[in-house]
Amino acid sequence: MPLKTKLTELLGIEHPIILAPMGGVSGGALAASVTRAGGFGLIGAGYGDPAWIEHEFAAAGNTPVGIGFITWSLAKQPQLLDLALARKPRTVMLSFGDAEPFARKVKDSGAILICQIQNVKDAKTVARLGADIVVAQGTEAGGHGAGRATFTLVPAVVDAVSPVPVVAAGGIADGRGLAASLMLGAVGALIGTRFSASQESLTHPNLKKRIVESDGDSTTRTKVFDTVRGYTWPHPYDGRAIRNDFLERWNGNDAGLQATMATEGPRYKDAAAQGDTNTMVMFAGENIDLIHDLPPAADIVARISKDAETLLSRPPGLR
Amino acid sequence: MPLKTKLTELLGIEHPIILAPMGGVSGGALAASVTRAGGFGLIGAGYGDPAWIEHEFAAAGNTPVGIGFITWSLAKQPQLLDLALARKPRTVMLSFGDAEPFARKVKDSGAILICQIQNVKDAKTVARLGADIVVAQGTEAGGHGAGRATFTLVPAVVDAVSPVPVVAAGGIADGRGLAASLMLGAVGALIGTRFSASQESLTHPNLKKRIVESDGDSTTRTKVFDTVRGYTWPHPYDGRAIRNDFLERWNGNDAGLQATMATEGPRYKDAAAQGDTNTMVMFAGENIDLIHDLPPAADIVARISKDAETLLSRPPGLR
Repeated sequence: MPLKTKLTELLGIEHPIILAPMGGVSGGALAASVTRAGGFGLIGAGYGDPAWIEHEFAAAGNTPVGIGFITWSLAKQPQLLDLALARKPRTVMLSFGDAEPFARKVKDSGAILICQIQNVKDAKTVARLGADIVVAQGTEAGGHGAGRATFTLVPAVVDAVSPVPVVAAGGIADGRGLAASLMLGAVGALIGTRFSASQESLTHPNLKKRIVESDGDSTTRTKVFDTVRGYTWPHPYDGRAIRNDFLERWNGNDAGLQATMATEGPRYKDAAAQGDTNTMVMFAGENIDLIHDLPPAADIVARISKDAETLLSRPPGLR
Repeated sequence: MPLKTKLTELLGIEHPIILAPMGGVSGGALAASVTRAGGFGLIGAGYGDPAWIEHEFAAAGNTPVGIGFITWSLAKQPQLLDLALARKPRTVMLSFGDAEPFARKVKDSGAILICQIQNVKDAKTVARLGADIVVAQGTEAGGHGAGRATFTLVPAVVDAVSPVPVVAAGGIADGRGLAASLMLGAVGALIGTRFSASQESLTHPNLKKRIVESDGDSTTRTKVFDTVRGYTWPHPYDGRAIRNDFLERWNGNDAGLQATMATEGPRYKDAAAQGDTNTMVMFAGENIDLIHDLPPAADIVARISKDAETLLSRPPGLR
């Protein structure tokens, strides 16, 4: 049973799998690999370096990809949306902030508007703004997000925004996760950490290794890495990362870290540049228990979709 | 397709649904209703009042039920296990603490040993102790629990303890949740909040009303209600409740609450006795978005199993 859903129809793709637009991780090569494998790749605009964005669109070549923005950051450099739309992305995703100033322009460009939210209230808001797809992101997700969990958020958002299609995000790393997402009422999955641990991702090799080796009990949500990097994320967002010395030292003591930024800031920057896993941020989701290798992205798309198809055609555990 | 799984076989039941042993909520009448409807009911021993436990076993009559203990609390009154085993429960569930001192005695009695855990490390421990069933409880759950979420915890625990059967808990309120649990590799679901909002539960009527009216965005995990009630829960456990004035006032200020217990303690007790929802603890899970009525427990069992069967035989969203 091929997994044809409203998502595969909308995006004209084979498998209901979207690459999460992870800043500094989801470049053009990874995005293009996911699209070529039958999913859909989104470049992660991150905090918005125009040259980087241009470079990564170029790296995707002629393969259709989209782009995802951190909305509160885009609000500081709204011209980046024009730059992106000039590349005719098939989709634009907005996460973390007020989508209203950008929604109309995205839709008028002909791109499909994907809005990612973390609670039911925001889901209703983006549905009103005309989101073509709502991504319900649970707290299991690696990197930035908020507090509600995928398992209950997805069906609640489905009920709240129907008939707008909902994609599940946060915690999906294998066919079980995709199949479960569909049971919860989603039309597909947006997947981050599993693709961060792929050959094409721009993730630091030391972090890729740690994703494979670490277990899900070892991640937590924290603000310390935003603080030390000088990013002021609005409430309620923080980021899920694998615990390390730096996190243990400063977690919950944001004021103390702020007060020592003159020394901790440069120290962090140097350590991160050297790939020092005791110090650098290691964004990863709670699903790293399920990640044991670093394959090409195409293998990940093929495995997840094939395994989900098998599970859905013959539900596991039934006698 | 009837949902026959390893769980239905082990317990000799029709539907893979277990009532969570919620203290002060899951009495004998509710437990017996769930068993008679084809699931399996567990009385919640809570903090261990022997007379209450005897009374609730009596209320269940001849219907087979089990009992669930708060393990760290049971350790203070180990004789309660003998009292319970004298009633020949079909199953005994241990949650929140070291199961080792009790596991052998439960198994030697002939009861099925269910151990609930909140992370992969503890799952491996209880599997070594001989747990017949491991319940993987996600942070979405109402009442006491910990930090990891159902969506990633369940498959990780399945991989860690196989072939010991794993039951999903935390966030399951409808057929979508049960079907998704099976896709994640579980053999069934342990369900709390949905049964708290049933006719037979011992839940305060004012809380039942709030569960139906509130949305999942309005719950949070907190320690304040344990502190004000004088319960010292060990790390890492806290409880998920619907936010109210008392929670907003004291959350994150445990020291302040401790310092004013001479006045806040009695004030809380009076308010809770009066069913004052601005003050009393309102344990509930993130799944309250999905709960819209207060039916008899048998209707809940029937609905969830029937809806899950339908979803599994014809996966939703597929074209």
